[in-house]
Order: sequence, then structure tokens, then C-alpha cells
Amino acid sequence: MEQQLPLFYGLSFLATALAFAFAAYLYLWVKKQRTENARILEVSALIKSGANAFMRREYSILAKFALVIAVIVFVLLPSPIWQGGSILDNVSIAIAYLIGTALSAVAGKIGILVATLANSRAAEGATHGIKPAFLIGFRGGAVMGLLVVGCSLLGVAAVLMVVGDATILLGFSFGASSLALFAKAGGGIFTKTADIAADLTGKVELGIPEDDPRNPAVIADNVGDNVGDVAGMGADLFDSNVAAMASALVIAQSLSGGLYNNVSMVFCYAILGLVASIIGIATARIGQHGNPTRALNSSTYVTTAVFLVLTAAATAVFPGFSWRIWGASSVGLLVGVIIGLTTDYFTDDTKPIVKKVAEASASGPAFTVLSGVAYGFISALPAMVGIAVSALVAYTICAPMGEGYAIFGISMAAVGMLSIVGMIISNDAYGPIVDNSRGLAEMGNLGEEAIRISDELDSAGNTVKAVTKGFSIGAAGLTVISLLGAFMSEANAALAAAGKPLLEGFDIMAPTVFFGVLIGAAIPAVFSAMLILGVDKNAQRMVAEIHRQFNSIPGLKEGKEGVVPEYDKCIDIATTGALRELIPAGLMSIVATLLVGFIGGPQAIGGFLLGNIVSGLLLALFMSNAGGLWDNSKKYVEAGNVGGKGSNAHKSAVIGDTVGDPFKDTAGPSINTQITVVSLVSSLLSTLFVAFSIFG
Amino acid sequence: MEQQLPLFYGLSFLATALAFAFAAYLYLWVKKQRTENARILEVSALIKSGANAFMRREYSILAKFALVIAVIVFVLLPSPIWQGGSILDNVSIAIAYLIGTALSAVAGKIGILVATLANSRAAEGATHGIKPAFLIGFRGGAVMGLLVVGCSLLGVAAVLMVVGDATILLGFSFGASSLALFAKAGGGIFTKTADIAADLTGKVELGIPEDDPRNPAVIADNVGDNVGDVAGMGADLFDSNVAAMASALVIAQSLSGGLYNNVSMVFCYAILGLVASIIGIATARIGQHGNPTRALNSSTYVTTAVFLVLTAAATAVFPGFSWRIWGASSVGLLVGVIIGLTTDYFTDDTKPIVKKVAEASASGPAFTVLSGVAYGFISALPAMVGIAVSALVAYTICAPMGEGYAIFGISMAAVGMLSIVGMIISNDAYGPIVDNSRGLAEMGNLGEEAIRISDELDSAGNTVKAVTKGFSIGAAGLTVISLLGAFMSEANAALAAAGKPLLEGFDIMAPTVFFGVLIGAAIPAVFSAMLILGVDKNAQRMVAEIHRQFNSIPGLKEGKEGVVPEYDKCIDIATTGALRELIPAGLMSIVATLLVGFIGGPQAIGGFLLGNIVSGLLLALFMSNAGGLWDNSKKYVEAGNVGGKGSNAHKSAVIGDTVGDPFKDTAGPSINTQITVVSLVSSLLSTLFVAFSIFG
Repeated sequence: MEQQLPLFYGLSFLATALAFAFAAYLYLWVKKQRTENARILEVSALIKSGANAFMRREYSILAKFALVIAVIVFVLLPSPIWQGGSILDNVSIAIAYLIGTALSAVAGKIGILVATLANSRAAEGATHGIKPAFLIGFRGGAVMGLLVVGCSLLGVAAVLMVVGDATILLGFSFGASSLALFAKAGGGIFTKTADIAADLTGKVELGIPEDDPRNPAVIADNVGDNVGDVAGMGADLFDSNVAAMASALVIAQSLSGGLYNNVSMVFCYAILGLVASIIGIATARIGQHGNPTRALNSSTYVTTAVFLVLTAAATAVFPGFSWRIWGASSVGLLVGVIIGLTTDYFTDDTKPIVKKVAEASASGPAFTVLSGVAYGFISALPAMVGIAVSALVAYTICAPMGEGYAIFGISMAAVGMLSIVGMIISNDAYGPIVDNSRGLAEMGNLGEEAIRISDELDSAGNTVKAVTKGFSIGAAGLTVISLLGAFMSEANAALAAAGKPLLEGFDIMAPTVFFGVLIGAAIPAVFSAMLILGVDKNAQRMVAEIHRQFNSIPGLKEGKEGVVPEYDKCIDIATTGALRELIPAGLMSIVATLLVGFIGGPQAIGGFLLGNIVSGLLLALFMSNAGGLWDNSKKYVEAGNVGGKGSNAHKSAVIGDTVGDPFKDTAGPSINTQITVVSLVSSLLSTLFVAFSIFG
Repeated sequence: MEQQLPLFYGLSFLATALAFAFAAYLYLWVKKQRTENARILEVSALIKSGANAFMRREYSILAKFALVIAVIVFVLLPSPIWQGGSILDNVSIAIAYLIGTALSAVAGKIGILVATLANSRAAEGATHGIKPAFLIGFRGGAVMGLLVVGCSLLGVAAVLMVVGDATILLGFSFGASSLALFAKAGGGIFTKTADIAADLTGKVELGIPEDDPRNPAVIADNVGDNVGDVAGMGADLFDSNVAAMASALVIAQSLSGGLYNNVSMVFCYAILGLVASIIGIATARIGQHGNPTRALNSSTYVTTAVFLVLTAAATAVFPGFSWRIWGASSVGLLVGVIIGLTTDYFTDDTKPIVKKVAEASASGPAFTVLSGVAYGFISALPAMVGIAVSALVAYTICAPMGEGYAIFGISMAAVGMLSIVGMIISNDAYGPIVDNSRGLAEMGNLGEEAIRISDELDSAGNTVKAVTKGFSIGAAGLTVISLLGAFMSEANAALAAAGKPLLEGFDIMAPTVFFGVLIGAAIPAVFSAMLILGVDKNAQRMVAEIHRQFNSIPGLKEGKEGVVPEYDKCIDIATTGALRELIPAGLMSIVATLLVGFIGGPQAIGGFLLGNIVSGLLLALFMSNAGGLWDNSKKYVEAGNVGGKGSNAHKSAVIGDTVGDPFKDTAGPSINTQITVVSLVSSLLSTLFVAFSIFG
């Protein structure tokens, strides 16, 4: 064990405590902001109870699911109990798995709590100007950001300190992933089901405005923002962050004993990332006439700069910290920022691409779709190149340090890219809070100025969301490369135990590898297709329910005083459907992994993971960016350009936005989680694939 | 050299002569069919002259382009002339390159000639029933099919016989590819520009029917069917066929001297594929009330069965022909048929998927698009699995034969899959001929029954096209794997000459390989995006021209007797725009290859080709199938389902079809060619990448 490691365990817990304390402070600050409007309080309570209903239902299913998986994990991992390894390892990994799921659930739950608290306060804040409204939204999001990062650091440090073996961390990470798959994909189906059904019946059929309280789906729509974007996104980034740390630690441990204190370094960087995020969050400000997008982005830059300076200082101070590793991690972070900026170019409505798509809409919806698809494809290029270059540079910088350091460099580039995840989540969770508060301002009749301010905050949320998504997809790409490294070291441990020749790599000319690559590449496409079709089907069910309510509740359509739709019916449909549609997609990816592993063995799995990463990155970037682009093109038209609201261009832009909705909020961001889950399943099952496979 | 080889050269020339003679017979048969309707003759002449104008323009640009490339090829390949290798090799490869371009051009030109001859005759044939109309359309297509296969066999055999070195064949193949890139992508942009512009101004704005002679774009639209689908598709499959044979021969030569007569076997199988296609074409029949889809498919099955039997017989008769190789080639062919059938499942309007998309259209165009995208993604899975399985099986069957035979097995699976390419092209070229004849029947007022028959023939063309496209994409996938093998043997020759260590494969854990994979995967996405945007831009230009004509030519809109639009202006826009929009896309893929090669060296290129193949296959399958699905869903609604013509579902389905048009006819099928071009450029430049690269 490295000498300084106890110090860094201690500092990890201290940093976590600091993060939790700051989160608590921000939570109390948000809570003490005034809310007086009765209508807002009422609607906000409905949103809160809807979100809680979904979370309860989801978690009660997940608890059973997690227990079943924990038993399977216990029986099979890290090696089947009948093979007579240490049973303590099997117990540890099963417990680590459960802790991973529990911490993910806690972070999601608290995020929802504060988001549903902040939305009403931000709405009322908007009546006093942009400054208070912005701060409430941002600080509400920051509570989530701090909790997620705190929980992941706490969990990783605690598990490793107790068991001492980083392989067990893969179990912890798998816990986080399996929950994220449900939270992100399930939440994504929920939110888009409600959004699409509300739009179709409200805006399109009846011509009533967005967030009109007559619409039975309106509460479900607002609930969706919380369960999909806040809880889902939090679980997703918790998962990525844990996976990045776990794979870096697995590799670091396999290197230990040399000149460098690699395990300590991973913790040190994670701690400093958390500290930098706290500083970035604490300094976020906006003037009375300030630009919220600029405020959000500038706190990201502050965090980045602080992280680079602090890690440089730490690298200079602590013995056994290598400047090469610092370089790799800095490259990762900088490339993350660059990916974010290029993504921004494709989705920001002050840049040419959004305008071009808006102008194409004047020729009809087919052109909205075609140009969005085309620019979405092109938008994937900079991020793919960025990931490719950062992996190549990190590898090249660290390779001279010795055997295995090159891949450790790549994993540290991922840790670097995710170091400011606390800040990223704060920005990301800000979005749904102000989106909700815009709805509340409308429903509470807070006046035009408050709605205008809310709109401005909401639009900033959309722009920033595109950037943070580019960031998180990039980080996932690098993480999964290091998971591939982790898989290889796990598979080699199993091969060594079985007395078989070790893997030296995965040669694409080997037929099993190639076989794996092709099938792996098809999985993200099928996975996202299943989610999109799930949203589709579920939205049809909700539309039918809304029609039923409009037809059977007298006075609802006309907006008669005191007539209230049955909001909970729609919430119920969204909840049930989300879980029902998600399970086949999740199962499909896991079953495909098992098939490939048991047919082609570890070589095929190596190829499978590569194919999965590559097509997953491409499709995730394409769908997230195309979706953001269509959304902002619609907003651009609605701001009075290319004919403005009600024009043919507007109708086309609305269709583009509807196509983009499940792209950017359901399928695109869920692919990340799908990739991580598949990678972890592969690493964990490597022993079995080594023992039983047809061609391997 | 193998003893039997002169025999097979002789047989190759004999088979080619037979194919040409049969093509001549079919051509004369088509030509002697009656055409009397004056209006049809007039329109048909316009189409012919438009197609010829495009071909002339295209070929005059291409001739210059080909000469420039030939000079570059001469200077640099197979090794730079200043390095003092045999200058004769450089001369040979440059000449081979030019022969490749010339034969591709000849095949395209004659295909256009016969297609523009057959369309009017098939239209008049329809007045006598489905039997004559079908035969004219099919035999017209068969002329093209026979010529393409004959030219490729002739070219490959002649080049190899003269120079004796299969590496030179890569130059021939590159000639075929570089022309195919122009013909397929340029033709694809041409055809969709005209199609979309004609639909937008005609059907949508004025409400006049398809193929209405008042529309200035109507002739360009019909010309497009010929230049995109006949000439482009012929060049594309000529390219794939040549590439499959060339890479199999490069690998076969590197194996020679052992127990097996591999080079002879490649020729023997190619000859028997041609013979089987001739038999399949000769036996194609339809009853007076027959089903044209069944007729087309059953001749495919006849050809498949004949090929399997003939090759089995040859394998039994000739010494040094291995049953293992026969197995690999049969697996390839059978998997090709299976890919075709699964593709059919997703695009045939008697199967559930087309119906589902049609039903989704009732909820609005966003649902048409979303469900089409989702099923398009899913439709890629069976083909990806099929290619993966056939590669794995072919490899496993042939690996016991010795070092290098496994990859030869994969290349023979590709040869097997493409063996019936003569039949495939006949079916494929049938489509645009009957599509044209449908238009002519409309313009010539041939009566409802003739239009109904033409419609039925056209619809069969669409269904069969989906199958043949699945087939050609699958074959391209396998071919490119063997091109990867060819690249490795070329790179190793260069490495050996430079005294550097040889490549043993491409390990995905190597950073340069991974770097290449990520960038390679982004290229097909960007390439297809550029083509889609090209169609978009060019269609806007043509729409503007149509509006100008409607506004400035008195009586045109109203259909006044004797007023004729300026058809040639639209043809001109389509021609100029197609070439202008295509060049940046082609250059982008070649420049990316050069960048990756000079940055990462041969390892990075290996990864680049893999990424390119994988994402290229995925996107090509997705776009071709989604496009076919939307097209047939629209036809399904127009047949009176889900509300029928004029309903909201119909409007949505039309939008889906417009989105799908550039997917299936421009971007999707061009990706094949892009992949082949990039693979050949890589193989040809391997010497340079070995000599000059930063990280390699």
C-alpha cells in the first residue's frame, strides 16, 4: 500500500463532509426563499407528489431487482463460489454492489427533493428580477451536483479503504450503473411521454398554450423534467464518475509498488475536483441585467482553472506524483471544454447552424428533419476527434513511465475530464428547475415580466445543457477506454488462474474480435430504437387517456372554474409505461453481451466493447446534438425569425423539435449508461467467459 | 504460377464473350419492341438527351480528374519513382487505374443507353398486359447486369494475365472506385435534387400529379432515375465486384505455391457466378396475372442454387480446389440471401413494420420520422449479425488450411456473396426502368390499366431494390474486411522493404489504432451529412428556378396547349449542383485518410478502416432501410389504408418519404463506395504511411 494513502482517505472524507455541509447550506438558503402564491404552491405540491410517486414506484421495483442481482453477483463474482475462491470476496462485491445502488438512489432522491423545492421559489424570484431567480435555480442544481460528487468520492474511498482491492470497486460501480440505467432511460421515457402527449393534445389539437392547467398531462410533463433530467442525469453522472475512478483505481493498483503513488494521486485529483467545483459554485453570480448563459459558462471556466492550478500544486508538493499524469489529466479536462464549445456551436441560437435549420424549415418539415440529421452527424466529428486526440496524447505522455502507464494515462484523462463534474451537474440540474419555474410562472399568472425572465433562464438552461452533455459523453468515451483496460486486466487474471495464455490485446484481424465489433456496434442503435419506440407507444397511451378526460369531464376543455383534470392518471401511465418499456431494452443489451461472451470468449468481448463504444459515442453525440439543435431552432423561430410563431416554418420547426425530444432526452443520454453497464458486466463476468465459450 | 491458370484465363474471356453476346441479344430484343405513341417518343427522347447531357458533363470532368490521379498514381505507386523501384510497375498501375475508370464508364454509359430505350417500350408494353411490360423492364436491366459483370471479369483477368502481380489490380480497383464515387454519389445528388424539387413544387404547392408534364423538373426527375439508379448503381456494384475479386486475388497470390490452386479458384467462381446469372436471367418469366416481385425473387433463388451446384461440381472436378473454400463462399452467398430477406421484412408492405409506420403517421409527421428512424436502426442488426457470423464461420472453416487461409476464406465469402451480382444488378436496374415507364404511361395518356400495371411493376421494383441493397451492403462489408487484409499485406511489404518490424495485427488497445477507429467511425456520418446537405441546397436552387418558370412563362401553370417548360434548365441545375456538392464530400474522406495515415501510421490506418467499415455499415443499412420503409409506408397509405390519399396520415407519410429519399438514394448507398475508396487509398499509400508518420 502507498504510504500517503491513509492521508488521502482522510482528505476524501473531509472533502465529502465539506461538500455535504455546503450542499446543506445551499439547501437551507433555497428553502428560506419566499413562496406565497397559492396557485404556485398548489401546483408545486402536485409536481412534488407526482415525482415522489414515480420515485417510490421505481425504487420499489429497483430494490427487488438490486437484491436479485446482488444474489447473482454473490454467487458468481469475482469467481463462482463453487470454484472455492475466497467467499469473503464474493460477499464484499455483493455488498459493494448494494452500496452503489443505494448511494445512487439517495443522490437521486435528494436531487428531486431540492429541485421540486427550488422550482416554485425560482418562479416567485422571477417577479423580483433575473438575479434572485437565477441564483435560486443555480443553487438548487448545485445541491444535486455536490451530493453526487460527494457520494461518489465517499463510496469509492470507503469501499477501497475497507476491502483494499479495487476489483471490488467494479461491483460498486456496477451498482451505480444498473441504477443509472433505470433512472436515466426510465426517467427519459417518462419525461418525453408526458412532454409529447401534452404538446400533441394541448398545443396541436386544442391550440392551448404550453403548461396550460387544463391539460391533464401538464403535471406529468413537469414531473418528467425532474425525474428525467434531475434524478436521471444525476444517476448518470454519478455512474460515469464512479466508473472513471474505479477503472483508474483498478489500473493504478495493478501498477503499484513502483516509483509512483498512483492510487493516492487518483484520490487527490478527485478531492481537488470537488474543491474546485465548490469554489466554482460559490462564486457563481449574475448581475441585475446579466446574461445567465455567460454566468453558467464562466463558473465552468473558473472551476477548470482552479482545478488545473490546484492539481499542479499537488503534483509539485507530493512525492511520487508524476507531472506526466498531471499532463494527461489536464489534456482530458481541456479537451472536455473544447468538446463542450464545439457542441455549443451546433446548438447555440446565436451561431449559424441553428439559423440554417430554422431557414430550412421554411421549405417544410422534411427539410427541418434532413438538415438537423445532417448537422447532427457533422457535430459528432469534433467530439470524436477530441476523444481520439486526448486518448492518443495521454497515452503518449504517460507511456515512458513504464509498462501499463499508458492506459493509466488514458484513465486519468477521463478522471480529469470528469473532475469538474460537480460543476457540470449544477449547471445541468439548473435547467429543469428553471424549466419548471417557467411553467409555474405561467400557471400562477405571475405576469409577463416574470414569464419573460423565466424564459430567458430556461433558454440558458437549454444552451448549457448541450455543452454539459457533450462533456459527459466525451468523458464516458474515455472512461470506457479505461474500462476496456480494466476488462483486459480482469480477463488476464482469470486466464492466468485457468492456466490459459494471456491476452496481449485485441487484434481486429482476429475473427472473434471482428465478430464482437460488428455486433457491439449494432447494440446502441437497437437500444436507442427500443427507447424511442417505447416513448412512442407510451405517448399514444397517454394521448388516449387525455382524450378520454376531455370527453368525459364536463367543462374541462372550456376551462370552467374549479374543474380540474385527473393529473394522477397521466402520471400513472408515464410511470408504468416507462418501467415497462425500459426493461426489454436493458435486457437486450445484457443478453447480447452474454451471447457474444459465451460464443466468442474474451477476445470477442474486447471487440464487442470497442464496437459498442464507437457506435455508441457516434449515436449519442448525433442524437443529443440534433435534438438540442431542433429545440433551439424552434425557439429561434418563436422569437420572431423566419416568419415567427404560427408560420409554416414554425410548424416545421415544432415537428423537428418533437422528433428531437426523445433523441436528446431519452435515447441519446441513455446510451452512455448502456455502454457503461455493458462494460462492467463484461469485466465482472470475465471469469465465466474465459471458462465457457464456443470459439474463444 | 498455378498450372491451370491459363485455362481459367481462357474461360474468363469465354464467359465474358458469352455474357456480352447474351447482353447484345437482349438489347436487340428490347430494341425491336414497338413504340408508336408520339408523346412517349418525344418525352423519352428528352429523358435520353438529358441523361446523355449529364453523362457527357460528368465524364468530361472525370476524364480530367482520372488523368490527374493517374499521374499521381504513376509518380507514387506502388512505390515513389524517386526510390528507384521498377518504373514498369508504376506504369502498369497507372494504366490499370485508367482501364478501371474506362470500363466503369463504358458499363454506365451502355446501361443508360439501354435503360432509356427500354422505358418507353415497357410503357407501351403495359398496354398489352403485365407480361410484356415486365419482360422489357427486366431484360433492359439485365443488359446492364451482364455488362457490369462481364467488364469486371474481363478487366481483372486481362490485367492479371498481362502483369502477373495482383497488387496492380488494386490500381484497377481504385479506378473503378473513384469513378463509382462520382457516379453513385453524384448521380444520387442529381436524382434526389430533381425528385424533391419536382414533388415540392408540383404535388405540394400546385397540387398537380406526379410526372405532370407542366412541371419543369419532371424530365430531370426521370433523368435522375437513370443516372442515379442505373448508371450509379452499376458503377457501385462494378466497384464492389472488382474490389472483392482484387482483394481475394492479392491474398490468394500471397498464399500461392502450396497445395491449393487459389488464384484459379477465384476466377473459376467468378466465371460460374456469371454463368449462373445468365441462366437466372434467361429463365426469368411471369404469367399473364403473375406477381412481379415473386418473379424477380425467384430468379435470384435460381441463380443462387445454380451457383452452389456449379461451384460444388467444379470443386469436385479440379485438383487443388478446397471444399473449405467452397464452404466459405457458400456461407457468404447464403448469408447474403438471409440479409436480403430480413431487409425485406422491414420494407415490404405486406409485413408488419410498414404498417406500423403508416399507423404512426396518423399521429403526425414526427411519429412517422421517429418510428422510421427506430425501425431503421433495428433493421441494421440482422445484417450486422449476418456479416459478423459469416466472417467468423468463413474464418473458422478455412483457418485449418494454413497461415493466411482464414482471411482468404473471408475474402471468398465476399466473392460468394457477390457471385450473383449479375442477377442483382438486373433486378436493381429493372426498378428505374419501370419507374420511368410509369411516368411515360402517365404523360402519354396510355390509360388507367396501363398505369395500374406500371404501378404494380414499379412497386415490385421498390421492394426488390431494398433486398438488393441489403445484399450489396453486406457484400461490401465482407469485401472491406478482406481489403483490410490486403492493406496489411501491402503495409507489411512496405515495412519489410524499410527494414521496420512487421504488423502482426491491429490491437485496439494500441493508442494509434484506437485513434484511427474513432476518427474512421465519424467519417461516414460526415460524408453522408455532406451529401444530404448537398441535395438540400441543390433542391432549393431548382425550386427557385421552377418558381421563375411558373412566373415568367405565360400559360405554363394553367397547362395551356403547346406551352412547354424549359426542362433543360432544371437538368442543368441538377448536373452542375451534383458535381459541385459531391467534390467536397469525396475530398473530405480522402483528406481524413491522409491525415490519419501521416499522423498515426499504418496502425492508425488499420483502426481507421475498421471504424469506417463499422459505422459505415451501420449508417448505410440504417439509411437505406429507413428510406425504403418510409417510401413503402407512403405507398401503403396511398393504397387506401389508414385514411388513404389526402388524409393527415398521408401528409405525414409524404414527409417521411421526402426525408427518406436522400437517405436511401443518395447517402446510404454512397457510403459503400466511400468505404471502398478509403480502403483502396490506404492500401495504395501504405508505403508512404510507413515512410512518413508522426506517431506511427
